[in-house]
Amino acid sequence: MLFGSIEAGGTKFVCAVGNENYQIKESTTFPTTQPQATLDQAINFFQQFPDLKAIGIASFGPIEIRKNSNNYGYVTNTPKPGWSNTDFVGYIKKSLNLPIYWTTDVNGSAYGEWFAYQQQQQPLNSLVYYTIGTGIGAGIVNDGKFIGSIGHPELGHVYLKRHPDDRDFSGICPFHGDCLEGLASGPTFKARLGIAGQDVPLSNHVWDIIAYYVAQAAIQTTLAFRPEKIVIGGGVASETFLEKVRLQFKQLLNDYVSVGDLKQYIVMPIVANNGSATIGDFALAQKALTE
Amino acid sequence: MLFGSIEAGGTKFVCAVGNENYQIKESTTFPTTQPQATLDQAINFFQQFPDLKAIGIASFGPIEIRKNSNNYGYVTNTPKPGWSNTDFVGYIKKSLNLPIYWTTDVNGSAYGEWFAYQQQQQPLNSLVYYTIGTGIGAGIVNDGKFIGSIGHPELGHVYLKRHPDDRDFSGICPFHGDCLEGLASGPTFKARLGIAGQDVPLSNHVWDIIAYYVAQAAIQTTLAFRPEKIVIGGGVASETFLEKVRLQFKQLLNDYVSVGDLKQYIVMPIVANNGSATIGDFALAQKALTE
Repeated sequence: MLFGSIEAGGTKFVCAVGNENYQIKESTTFPTTQPQATLDQAINFFQQFPDLKAIGIASFGPIEIRKNSNNYGYVTNTPKPGWSNTDFVGYIKKSLNLPIYWTTDVNGSAYGEWFAYQQQQQPLNSLVYYTIGTGIGAGIVNDGKFIGSIGHPELGHVYLKRHPDDRDFSGICPFHGDCLEGLASGPTFKARLGIAGQDVPLSNHVWDIIAYYVAQAAIQTTLAFRPEKIVIGGGVASETFLEKVRLQFKQLLNDYVSVGDLKQYIVMPIVANNGSATIGDFALAQKALTE
Repeated sequence: MLFGSIEAGGTKFVCAVGNENYQIKESTTFPTTQPQATLDQAINFFQQFPDLKAIGIASFGPIEIRKNSNNYGYVTNTPKPGWSNTDFVGYIKKSLNLPIYWTTDVNGSAYGEWFAYQQQQQPLNSLVYYTIGTGIGAGIVNDGKFIGSIGHPELGHVYLKRHPDDRDFSGICPFHGDCLEGLASGPTFKARLGIAGQDVPLSNHVWDIIAYYVAQAAIQTTLAFRPEKIVIGGGVASETFLEKVRLQFKQLLNDYVSVGDLKQYIVMPIVANNGSATIGDFALAQKALTE
């Protein structure tokens, strides 16, 4: 029995096939070009595996997740050229008539982390997963399920208190200027300093500023969901950066609620090699098969 | 068959008994003094009703909601004098041996509103209820259930973007200074203007500033939960104020996600006379009885 995973990012697609233990048997990565060409590449990959039983798709968004919507399974009003109103699930189903679980990229990662903790005999009821890279998003597993009635969470676009040393920066979000993504995503390093984030040493004060914003985001989801863990992944995340986030989190929250040991609460992903979404997709594919 | 409700506020207790249609048969209100005296008054009230089958309690907090905790049913580290570490549920159960549903004051109100929509043939999957008065809190019904693993939500204490005309105000939250409660709760009128909120005309610009913060809070819960409705109650709420909140919400969210008609999305409570928590408690009492 094999399960499929499509991690559909705005830059690249990662497709994988795994066995019933969610071990990857084969995987392929290709750039996200136009919808039809890109989805055809995914279909071609999966057609090699006649034992494939179901597919989990974790897609960039926004996407339509309401099952009673005519556009269920679509990528909706995305700024990604060519992809607005793409019937992602419908197109895949036409060629691969299999059960499909459809969710957001960050939900896929959140579910993969949630599942990995379960595998490690440390089951969690709830977990928030932030990705901080080109953009910022968050997936949430609450009581073992995803959150969202009229749509999926979009936690990259909340507003925050300004760091006193960052008052002059207007933010880079085309929708909101200085929302979380506008203040703390990877490209804000270049916007502030003229240098890409990977070239800015962690000793640079901008890292403290970014950590201040990420800590506020973590406080928001702490106070909203009271999760057992907040996982921070994406290109900006590192253990050194997370230590800065924990410091700001502690100061800003001021022990108002208890979250236990911060080193165990705000953490890096435990699935190696950015593989959280793939594992999550396998587990969600199995869910689609059995439900 | 009768159900009981205790709406336990920091200032007053409202106890009520209702029939199986959740119509109030009798109710009483008394000030919140010391725990034993106050809880005894509640017990004396309920002891008049031998047909009482279960009680819903919506309490000020923070409270312990984890059923596996030794302190389940306690008011925990509250600043309210005398009430820290009060075994609320245990004390009630000793005299009235009935099934009890235990939750926060705002969750009780959220559940009452959620239930009232169901009664009006407009069932909702999810709803956020803010109370904005002496303090700020939010209750959440998601997929018909409450949110929270290691505790209950505490959404009054999130950080926000400052209104440009409010830069000099330091906020009044003893824990956080300028969190939502520190910037937008009722007492901030007095702190800013020297006049109590009820004496400040809605034309005063401070109302726009408060609306700006409440709108950001509503955006946070919109992007976190994607609820079908955000109800705003408490002493600060009015239809005129909510119109200001909607205006700011629209500008700040900038149509990033769709929430439908704002007049139907950000709304006043539909249960009359601040009765949301009582109705919610009756429904939760019935839940405690049947589960």
